[in-house]
Amino acid sequence: MTYDIIIVGAGPAGVTAGIYAARKKMRTLILTGSVGGSSAVSGTIENWVGESSMSGTEFARRLETHLRAQEGVEIRTDETVTGVSGPLGGPFEVMTERGESFRAKSVIVASGVRHRPLGVPGEETFMGKGVAYCSTCDAPFFRNRSVVVVGGGNSAFEAVEDLLPYATAVTVLTIDPEFTADPILRERVLASDKVTPVRSAKSEEIVGERRVKSLRYSEVATGEMRECPCDGVFVEIGMIPNSEPVSGIAERTRGAEIVVDPRTFATSVPGIFAAGDVTDMPYRQNNISAGQGAVAALAAYDFVRNAGAGD
Amino acid sequence: MTYDIIIVGAGPAGVTAGIYAARKKMRTLILTGSVGGSSAVSGTIENWVGESSMSGTEFARRLETHLRAQEGVEIRTDETVTGVSGPLGGPFEVMTERGESFRAKSVIVASGVRHRPLGVPGEETFMGKGVAYCSTCDAPFFRNRSVVVVGGGNSAFEAVEDLLPYATAVTVLTIDPEFTADPILRERVLASDKVTPVRSAKSEEIVGERRVKSLRYSEVATGEMRECPCDGVFVEIGMIPNSEPVSGIAERTRGAEIVVDPRTFATSVPGIFAAGDVTDMPYRQNNISAGQGAVAALAAYDFVRNAGAGD
Repeated sequence: MTYDIIIVGAGPAGVTAGIYAARKKMRTLILTGSVGGSSAVSGTIENWVGESSMSGTEFARRLETHLRAQEGVEIRTDETVTGVSGPLGGPFEVMTERGESFRAKSVIVASGVRHRPLGVPGEETFMGKGVAYCSTCDAPFFRNRSVVVVGGGNSAFEAVEDLLPYATAVTVLTIDPEFTADPILRERVLASDKVTPVRSAKSEEIVGERRVKSLRYSEVATGEMRECPCDGVFVEIGMIPNSEPVSGIAERTRGAEIVVDPRTFATSVPGIFAAGDVTDMPYRQNNISAGQGAVAALAAYDFVRNAGAGD
Repeated sequence: MTYDIIIVGAGPAGVTAGIYAARKKMRTLILTGSVGGSSAVSGTIENWVGESSMSGTEFARRLETHLRAQEGVEIRTDETVTGVSGPLGGPFEVMTERGESFRAKSVIVASGVRHRPLGVPGEETFMGKGVAYCSTCDAPFFRNRSVVVVGGGNSAFEAVEDLLPYATAVTVLTIDPEFTADPILRERVLASDKVTPVRSAKSEEIVGERRVKSLRYSEVATGEMRECPCDGVFVEIGMIPNSEPVSGIAERTRGAEIVVDPRTFATSVPGIFAAGDVTDMPYRQNNISAGQGAVAALAAYDFVRNAGAGD
């Protein structure tokens, strides 16, 4: 059997693509780890338009409810897609880690991003023993502890906010000369007397015994080594696109983002589309991913209808 | 005083832009007819992701509530923007029909579209006397009447759906050889025995006395004239972009859509952005407009911060 479309991932981009594909009566298969994607682990979402404030869990629940209300969408969770192959223009074979293979006339890759590791000694050793990547998940484990958040953007500052109700002290440390988080968020966080900002600091090593005891860093200007005692290190220095499924087939940037035509979200392979954080588009937000998922689904519909990829 | 940003329009694109601009602490002014835009007159919205079904009024209410919850956003309703002027790179002067003028470092045009008229004799004469453009607004006036809907796309078929609970008979008439509405919608509508499809038919005249009595049309293939008796004609043949405010300044397509860079929604004038249905982007949906509004706001923020447009 050949699906009209296989969607890889079910965050805001994948779910929106699924809803739009279903409304176009496309035979749709979604292969994903879970429905909701990384949005589900956001603490509070204040900028999903139409909803002044809701939890990440609530957002994921709404996406899932809306998706499952569509007829003609098959959803397989706990799946990891390992590859996509097939002739230009399709049909395509989508392979999963379980060794299964599914065939479709079009594919949308909406597999999102994962956390970039710091890449310093001690990081792997103390993973889960003080080193963490998900403040929403792990903040409560740092009650009455002191923590360093490495990073200077929105996710770093959101991690600090997540930690403030629990931790006694939070150091937010960036290699850059300035923090790049939104002013509104930055000001709110830095106003707390629990927060210590450290700029122009290069993380060098995570030190500990059974658990993390400190973060060693060097000053960018002087190279001078310093040590910041702490019970935990949250790494928030950016994301890596989950673009491996199309690594051999579609064009990617040096940062492994899938290159898309920003008007249709077509990749370099006719019939394969990509949407959301996995692409090379410049801004990453839930609303933006949803819009891209809608465009990709409508463009895939046009592709399948017009190109009439073989069965 | 100079705003950081003026947003023209408050449909899904304008509202989303406003929320994102506020979260970036930009001094924001929104000039609009009303908040919610043309979405407010949609009957039922089933494809705003995260909400399986809600009314257009409810959608508009949610947009307005979320927008008004933001600090630093000034909203002026009942405004019509007549022009935008200023040197390349800004600051810009935004003029309104009331003769006022507002200054801003950046502008987002999110003014949407309006209905395209049929352009046949009788259309203006019988406007409001049987000729209508908004099925959500006017369907209830056609209880126990027979109606022609001119058009073959989604909005035409949505208009038929709006009319079915009221009208005794609905003819859906298109100049094209086939209807282009979504299959799911088309099938549902054409399954009704109240609905008569007419294809390849060119509307020629709306005939009546005090009110509409018939639609005269010619068969595209033969030129043969036919007459379809009816009490009402709903015109659903597409939309015209409300791009007049930037007509003298930013590049537009022959169809009057504002040409944008699809990665940043910048227009041909640095500092002026556009988002949503008023642009030349290929697909038009609430979720897509919202995503574009978010991108435009983030790009405008980068523009104001980096270019440092003068005060």
